[in-house]
Amino acid sequence: MAESDILRRLRSLPLHPGALGLADDAARLDSFVLTTDLLVEGVHFLPDDPPGDVAWKLLATNLSDLAAKGATPEGVLLGMPLHSRDWDAAFIDGLDTALRHFGCALLGGDTVSGGRTYALTAIGRAAIAPMRSGARPGDIAWVTGTIGDAGAGLAIARGAAGPERLRDRYRRPTPRLVEGLALAPLVTAMMDVSDGLLIDAGRMASASGCAVAIDLTRIPLSDAYAVWSGDRIAAATAGDDYELLFALPPGVTPPVAATAVGRFAVGHGLTLTDDGVPVPLPDRLGWLHD
Amino acid sequence: MAESDILRRLRSLPLHPGALGLADDAARLDSFVLTTDLLVEGVHFLPDDPPGDVAWKLLATNLSDLAAKGATPEGVLLGMPLHSRDWDAAFIDGLDTALRHFGCALLGGDTVSGGRTYALTAIGRAAIAPMRSGARPGDIAWVTGTIGDAGAGLAIARGAAGPERLRDRYRRPTPRLVEGLALAPLVTAMMDVSDGLLIDAGRMASASGCAVAIDLTRIPLSDAYAVWSGDRIAAATAGDDYELLFALPPGVTPPVAATAVGRFAVGHGLTLTDDGVPVPLPDRLGWLHD
Repeated sequence: MAESDILRRLRSLPLHPGALGLADDAARLDSFVLTTDLLVEGVHFLPDDPPGDVAWKLLATNLSDLAAKGATPEGVLLGMPLHSRDWDAAFIDGLDTALRHFGCALLGGDTVSGGRTYALTAIGRAAIAPMRSGARPGDIAWVTGTIGDAGAGLAIARGAAGPERLRDRYRRPTPRLVEGLALAPLVTAMMDVSDGLLIDAGRMASASGCAVAIDLTRIPLSDAYAVWSGDRIAAATAGDDYELLFALPPGVTPPVAATAVGRFAVGHGLTLTDDGVPVPLPDRLGWLHD
Repeated sequence: MAESDILRRLRSLPLHPGALGLADDAARLDSFVLTTDLLVEGVHFLPDDPPGDVAWKLLATNLSDLAAKGATPEGVLLGMPLHSRDWDAAFIDGLDTALRHFGCALLGGDTVSGGRTYALTAIGRAAIAPMRSGARPGDIAWVTGTIGDAGAGLAIARGAAGPERLRDRYRRPTPRLVEGLALAPLVTAMMDVSDGLLIDAGRMASASGCAVAIDLTRIPLSDAYAVWSGDRIAAATAGDDYELLFALPPGVTPPVAATAVGRFAVGHGLTLTDDGVPVPLPDRLGWLHD
């Protein structure tokens, strides 16, 4: 079944009001924000990825959903398949490093004797939890950090030549928790860029009932990526950036380092420009499946 | 790595105070109780189990942890691998039935394209959340319902002759939510029987710093089980009952249907009697792995 069919069926289940119609990345329960993610071997991590990096990524991808809600991490529940003594020990060591790095703590979990699927549920506290659906025509679309590094990093992890710095952006993403907390009171909409800037910008526009135009030349690239390929279409359609995409009214300056990449408008759909000149959309806007 | 080694390592991670030292089945966060469980194909369900029953079991086993805390279900987060169109549709239909049956709702989730591991995190609200560690010498050990049906049901699901009623006790367990809510203010300790009555009673005694004696002849058996085999040792060491095991001070009568099966005492360890006469413990007290 296609993911869209599954989502439609899941939306027909009895939904908690805090599920927000399953239209966002995280759920609300009182002042808590909750999110859950699975990491599957061969899909979300490679069999020879270092176990510490898998643990980091498991935590970081969940915390990225909290960051998009301006939430402060409170704790996580871990679902861990037992694999081999050394791998499991290195995984837990890596989780230890990652939990301490992000000021997070283990709340509970479950260990099982089969499968290579890791599950994490992360819980955070948020005073204001922006949704992806609040962007208004005229708002400016901004992103934190640089885009495309993780896409290059995946190619490098798979054997392409390239610097470790890019590979590590794929293996050890950084959830923008500090930025999310500072942005939450100001933004009209916010989400993390997990499937690709173009597809995620289109989703924000669609959820907000407006159109969005992204300018390719404004997409922020790292120096390392510019040297590695500098391909802006590849950058804008690669996944795993875990930067924040957010909408601000015109004239509002973000309180964190960020780059204006486009503008929301009346209408619907995503359009792309290259230094202001309309260009056709690529066939693939990002990962259709996470 | 053995599960005990893993648990020791996990306990060395930064723990949230609500993790309660990872010594219990569920975590606390303000007035919420949280638990997470993985169901792995070939380990926790059989490849030819009906998908609706897998969904039921996924929800029921998590809600059983909430029942042991006297918690009322608030919502669940689902981690779902996509398998095949028909299987996935039947799974979601089964989840719909189970959610409505237990008055629960979906809060959020994640779908992935690989693996056969289902993850569920359940969140409930509890005014009082008993732990497994509060039993005192002299307290009486009680269980709800009947013991051993699910063990027989697993054998029947694997091809042994026997009634559907027993098989369905394995496939569609009933979390004792109503009983847990009524018992929570009265018990000194409570947990669900998931790995076997003997092993779980021993765990409750160990966590409580006392000994426990279980009397085989007092273990409540269903009529169907009595006809199927009536083996009390098999019943007391089979898993998947999802009944509640709880400790009450002597003289306190439980407000729900339950059977006194033993008594806590000064000391440590589990002892077994048969109509009051000490008998040796079986080699296997239950499932060492869930």
